[in-house]
Order: sequence, then C-alpha cells, then structure tokens
Amino acid sequence: MCELILYSYWRSSCSYRVRIALNLKKLAYEYRAVHLIRDGGGQRHSDYLRLNPKGEVPCLTHRGRPLAQSMAIIEYLERVFPAPALFPTDPWAAARVRQLCELVNAGTQPLQNLSVLQELDRRCHVGPAGQSDWAKFWIDRGLKALEATLKNTCGRFCLGDEVSAADLFLVPQIYNAVRYELDLNAYPTLERINKSCLAMEAFQRAEPSRQPDAPVKT
Amino acid sequence: MCELILYSYWRSSCSYRVRIALNLKKLAYEYRAVHLIRDGGGQRHSDYLRLNPKGEVPCLTHRGRPLAQSMAIIEYLERVFPAPALFPTDPWAAARVRQLCELVNAGTQPLQNLSVLQELDRRCHVGPAGQSDWAKFWIDRGLKALEATLKNTCGRFCLGDEVSAADLFLVPQIYNAVRYELDLNAYPTLERINKSCLAMEAFQRAEPSRQPDAPVKT
Repeated sequence: MCELILYSYWRSSCSYRVRIALNLKKLAYEYRAVHLIRDGGGQRHSDYLRLNPKGEVPCLTHRGRPLAQSMAIIEYLERVFPAPALFPTDPWAAARVRQLCELVNAGTQPLQNLSVLQELDRRCHVGPAGQSDWAKFWIDRGLKALEATLKNTCGRFCLGDEVSAADLFLVPQIYNAVRYELDLNAYPTLERINKSCLAMEAFQRAEPSRQPDAPVKT
Repeated sequence: MCELILYSYWRSSCSYRVRIALNLKKLAYEYRAVHLIRDGGGQRHSDYLRLNPKGEVPCLTHRGRPLAQSMAIIEYLERVFPAPALFPTDPWAAARVRQLCELVNAGTQPLQNLSVLQELDRRCHVGPAGQSDWAKFWIDRGLKALEATLKNTCGRFCLGDEVSAADLFLVPQIYNAVRYELDLNAYPTLERINKSCLAMEAFQRAEPSRQPDAPVKT
C-alpha cells in the first residue's frame, strides 16, 4: 500500500498542481477519484469531509494523515521529499516563486471554480454563457497580471531556466483558460512557458485527460 | 529610511495580515497608504502597477525590491527574520498551519474582496444588499470549514498554544466577518482564538482603525 494517497478529480486544476509535484519528485501514490458533480458531489460526503472539512479536492494523506490546500501540500512535499527542489534556495527568489504561485492560487483560480460559478447562477440566473463569461473575465485578469509579473524574470520556465512551483500553478491555469476558450495569444510568455512544461513527462502524466477518472474519449 | 516599506490600505484584510507579521517580528517599516477607492483606486495607478502588476495591496518592498501576495510576504519574512517563528519546525505541523492559512487566503477572502463585489454588481445589479449577502455567504462557508478543521488541534491559538501564521489569517478574516455582520457565535472556537490574539499588542497595533489612513472617528 502506498504511503501517499491523493484524493483528486481529473479536471480539478488544484489537484493537477499536486499531481505534477508528485510526478516531478518521482513519488508513487494511490489515486482516489472524488467526483465533484455526480450524486451531489463526492466532496460533500461525510467520509470525505472528515479528511477535508472544506469539501474540496485535492487532499493528500501521508501515512494516514490528511492535508488539504494545494499550496500547503506542495510546501510539505518540498520539505519531506526535497529533491528535486521546487523552490530556489535564495530567499528572495523563493519569495518571487511564491508570489507567482499565489497569483494563481489566491488571485485567479478561486474566482472561477465550480462552486463560485454554481453560486453565481443560483443567485443571478446567468446561465452557462454567463458563468463562462465570469470565468473568462477572472482568468484573463489573473493571466495578464501573471504575464506582467514574470515577463522580466522568467527564462524557459516561470523563474529562470529551472522548473519551480510556479510552473505547477501556471500549467493548470492555462488548461482552464483553454477550457473557457480564452485566446492564449494575449499571454505570449505564459504560452511559451506552458509549452516548455508540457514537453516534460512529469507534466504530461498529470494532465486531466490521462487520469483514471477522466471520461473515455469515443 | 526604513529598508522595509509596506504599501497598505487600512481596511484591507490582506494588508492587515502582513502588519501583524511585521509587528510580531518587531520590524520597523514605513507605512505607505494606497487608497483603494478614491480617484479610481491608487492600486491601479501606473506607479503602483510597476510594483505589483496585479494592482492589489499589500506590497512590501525590502531594500527597494517589491514583493506582493501576503502569503509570499509572510513566508519571506519568516526566512529572512526568523524570530519569533510563525511556522512550527515540525514539517507536518507547519503543513497544517499552511492549510489553515490557505483556507482563508485562497478559500475565503478572494471571494468576498472589493473587486469581486464590484464585478458582481456590474454584471448582476445586486446592489449593496446583494453584495453584502454574497460576502456573508462565502465568509460563513470559509469560517465554518476553518472551525471544523482546527477544532481538534487548536489550543489558545490556531495550532496549539503558540501564535502561528494561521492566526495572522484568522484575525483579519474575523474582522471582515464583523464588518458584514455575521454572528460570531456560529464559530465559537474561532471567536475564542480571535480574542486571545487581540489581547496581544502586535495584533492591536495592526488593527485597521489604528492605521494612519483610517478615517478619523468623529
């Protein structure tokens, strides 16, 4: 039995971040799917709420102890399984990486996640087009700020020429941008970095469509 | 001249977190007010956008170099000015602290901040009552999850009997809850911890009403 178990949903961008981290660090883990929509949402079942009272994926258990919030999980993995490093050793560089992570983690993704879109529709009856327009608005705003923030300090990846935690937040957010049909030409630097990342096997294996709970393409 | 400059708005809960951290670590800093509403918002002026392209407070400069995102700033302060510690040395305990921080940072505050309320009104014409109701909904949901998450591991503070970074996120979120007139009796553990924190001078000096840009009470 694996000592690491990841509770994940194939299309959850926050779960996607953790899958990349686990792959980069070459950590074996058991994948347990939590379906966010079917039967009222597996994340709201009492068994799952005992692991994460916030009722969200991802949640990682390590030797049976549960930890939620993708940023907290990634910082924990970095501490316990330090190689390869996802944060630079220089404190200022590490801080800049965390700023980029949080620009997505706190500044972009929460505003476009499923529960917010559902609540927006429940209150304002905006329908699928209105939900999609709301998501696009916040993703565009976040990605424009990200592009401006990293433009002068990036290299092949978000910070220089080495993969860092920032790339783990960028790639899933770009995936969401594509899902909501944003034009990536508006963020040329991000698009270039996204391509560099997706050339790597650790990122490829973490892609939503390759997860065990992804719908089979027909 | 101070080597630390904090760009802040008195009522910004994310700025409030950083003010507490600076006070706990007894760091002198220069306070520069950014008015989020007057004249279209100082956070959108080109001079400020050069510091933080996301156009949000807080932003901390250290020896002239700017860093945004409160979580990134607090992690940086911890690394460069380690005493007193805001994160436990045990990796698992530190991870739990980060989970609590992120439950507020990514899971609660972004959904109730000013720009989201403005956008909600622009699209759905919900008016001040509808904006307030939206804010209350998300704050209540976040605080209920926080209460359930820390109930069994807290002590006088969010994690045991020592102040940690988690308390820096809790107190400003409770301030917002009070602002939107939520009944704190629904979160008895959080209310108790909030009181323990507000008995400390470092928390008191960081309170919104005590900042130089707070309106003078008449």
